[in-house]
Amino acid sequence: MSITAPRGFLAAGVTAGIKVSGGPDVALVRSDPAAVGAAMWTANRVQAAPVVVSRRHLEVAEPQAVVVNAGSANAATGAAGEADAEATAAAAAAELGLVPEQVVVLSTGVIGVPLPMERMLAGVRAAARELSVAGGDAAARAILTTDSGPKTAVAEGEGFVVGGMAKGAGMIHPRLATMLAVITTDYPLAAGEAGRFLRPAVEGSFNRISVDGDCSTNDAVVLLANGARAVSRTPRSDEAFAAALASVCGDLARLIVADGEGATVVLEISVRGAVSDEQAHAIAQRIATSPLVKTAAFGRDPNWGRVLAAAGSAPWDGGFAELDPASLSVSFDGVTVFDRGSPTGSVPQLGGAACRVDLALGLGEGAAAYLASDLTYDYVRINAEYTT
Amino acid sequence: MSITAPRGFLAAGVTAGIKVSGGPDVALVRSDPAAVGAAMWTANRVQAAPVVVSRRHLEVAEPQAVVVNAGSANAATGAAGEADAEATAAAAAAELGLVPEQVVVLSTGVIGVPLPMERMLAGVRAAARELSVAGGDAAARAILTTDSGPKTAVAEGEGFVVGGMAKGAGMIHPRLATMLAVITTDYPLAAGEAGRFLRPAVEGSFNRISVDGDCSTNDAVVLLANGARAVSRTPRSDEAFAAALASVCGDLARLIVADGEGATVVLEISVRGAVSDEQAHAIAQRIATSPLVKTAAFGRDPNWGRVLAAAGSAPWDGGFAELDPASLSVSFDGVTVFDRGSPTGSVPQLGGAACRVDLALGLGEGAAAYLASDLTYDYVRINAEYTT
Repeated sequence: MSITAPRGFLAAGVTAGIKVSGGPDVALVRSDPAAVGAAMWTANRVQAAPVVVSRRHLEVAEPQAVVVNAGSANAATGAAGEADAEATAAAAAAELGLVPEQVVVLSTGVIGVPLPMERMLAGVRAAARELSVAGGDAAARAILTTDSGPKTAVAEGEGFVVGGMAKGAGMIHPRLATMLAVITTDYPLAAGEAGRFLRPAVEGSFNRISVDGDCSTNDAVVLLANGARAVSRTPRSDEAFAAALASVCGDLARLIVADGEGATVVLEISVRGAVSDEQAHAIAQRIATSPLVKTAAFGRDPNWGRVLAAAGSAPWDGGFAELDPASLSVSFDGVTVFDRGSPTGSVPQLGGAACRVDLALGLGEGAAAYLASDLTYDYVRINAEYTT
Repeated sequence: MSITAPRGFLAAGVTAGIKVSGGPDVALVRSDPAAVGAAMWTANRVQAAPVVVSRRHLEVAEPQAVVVNAGSANAATGAAGEADAEATAAAAAAELGLVPEQVVVLSTGVIGVPLPMERMLAGVRAAARELSVAGGDAAARAILTTDSGPKTAVAEGEGFVVGGMAKGAGMIHPRLATMLAVITTDYPLAAGEAGRFLRPAVEGSFNRISVDGDCSTNDAVVLLANGARAVSRTPRSDEAFAAALASVCGDLARLIVADGEGATVVLEISVRGAVSDEQAHAIAQRIATSPLVKTAAFGRDPNWGRVLAAAGSAPWDGGFAELDPASLSVSFDGVTVFDRGSPTGSVPQLGGAACRVDLALGLGEGAAAYLASDLTYDYVRINAEYTT
């Protein structure tokens, strides 16, 4: 069910012939009753046409529908690419009785080639005809590129539901890009309010994962809230909604890391004792993106030397974050291997699909967590073997 | 010859039994006549004991000798490690008629285990006995860890010589660290003056290369200048010396990248048209460290989409560097594949041991260059297969 688990959402996924593989490649999500919404976009300075167009739409209207295509990213396609994204929104709006500005368009796939518009528009019309509550799973499949399978999550609160679907396994195939997520809820939010809930949920989930440290031109997370349940809002229900939203975002983010290109293990990196949460985040991110830490993880090597070297070179305030080597401690899967400046001699046996890495800095109260995949032969194969 | 190519330098390399492999592992370089010198160190906040001790030495005396050992990094070894580095300097000083503060100590190898001091001190004494002009090559071999061979460079100016030796191929073996370089010259410099020449030479060479973006706990570049040639200095001779120093640093830096872990190609990344040289550097570095760009290089794939995505996410001023996608151009080996915002359709055939990647931003006059190795199966193998 995923995105159609909350009341008042319909979805469809159809095959429009955009993907070379011939798999389903156009998804449509629609809210009825009227929804409010928000989106968060890639911070990459090179932004795809659908990102440019959808940002513009969200500035002037609340989103009622989301069109997603896989197979072509419509990125680095210039003014023609923006016109194609606009035409896609207009086609969906015409089918659904909306204005184009109420439609969000997302694309993922090959960079630098035009969208095949005839197929795209036929796909949008077919998807509009097939919209149903049962269509959530088909939609979740139609947004995938080289993901190993659909990524969905649902969380229930008292009287409301949050559902989500996502795609992404790094910037996988050469010229294939993107992490995309669409989240729906029947919790009632007022106009302009969705962003306030979405931002912290994304900050604690999708912004705390790394497959390869690369940030795509198409990344997007969209939230639609239609209030189809008559929940009477209280500060406590808002908290419950925020928690459910965080849960869905966290589940989807973890699915993306676990399905990371060539990944064999999820590294659960935790940094505490930093001077601030922001500094802890910078250090956790540096560890999560270190090729040496990630290859050691693939070798199931509790290599605290590489964790320390990464932590000691975390970008911070124009230089590297200040550390006191004598107050550092590191543990793998709960076994302390480096204790306040000295190796303990313990050698934990690592195994399984997850590995916890805890770094304590002993400087303050700042803490942060990060999820990362390991760096493997298959990562190199996936990203090197297909030449253009 | 390398470091003994300039007049007035003696060197030796001996086997002290510190390396498990049984290869040569202690090098000694000595200047006679008296030298002045400078060093640049890793910016990593976790610094090895020899770095801490040698920095202290250089604050109070001009360096006359450098001891280097391979096989143990003497890093993350606490106060005992610093005492061992001090004892090493003291032993060398006693053999050479110096005070300990005139000796620089460098270590590379396994992190977190104590230096085997009996072997180390015996090695220092043996090296002191073997010092000779012919010993430059033996010294260059004794500082290696898993490098495929010695890395040396010599540049001659009018009436003077600059010689250098280096080691490093990333942070290679699990718990082996470090890029080290020792540079000698018979050009006359005054006390306190060496750093002024060393800094820009290192900035344009060792600080413009990336094997895996990891920064070790032991990185060091040391320059000794003994004025053994009676060059009469002029602004023009100073320029010639700066150029020779830059040439030696540049040659050594390129050797390190070409010998990078598992590397099959050297990426010569050039960014121009940035708003400043500093911004061009940030963008070049982001491209040089992108796993997607580096795996594409391994696949000999002229993947401009990944170059653009990396450039668009270069850290700058607390965010990402501002770019105008419509003014971006990319070429591979001189063939333009993306021209002011649009793909050209050209597909250059990449091959050989080097690949030029040029990115033009069209924003200003800022430019920077960077060398990077590709990301390969062998990189993963080297860094993952040895478990502790």
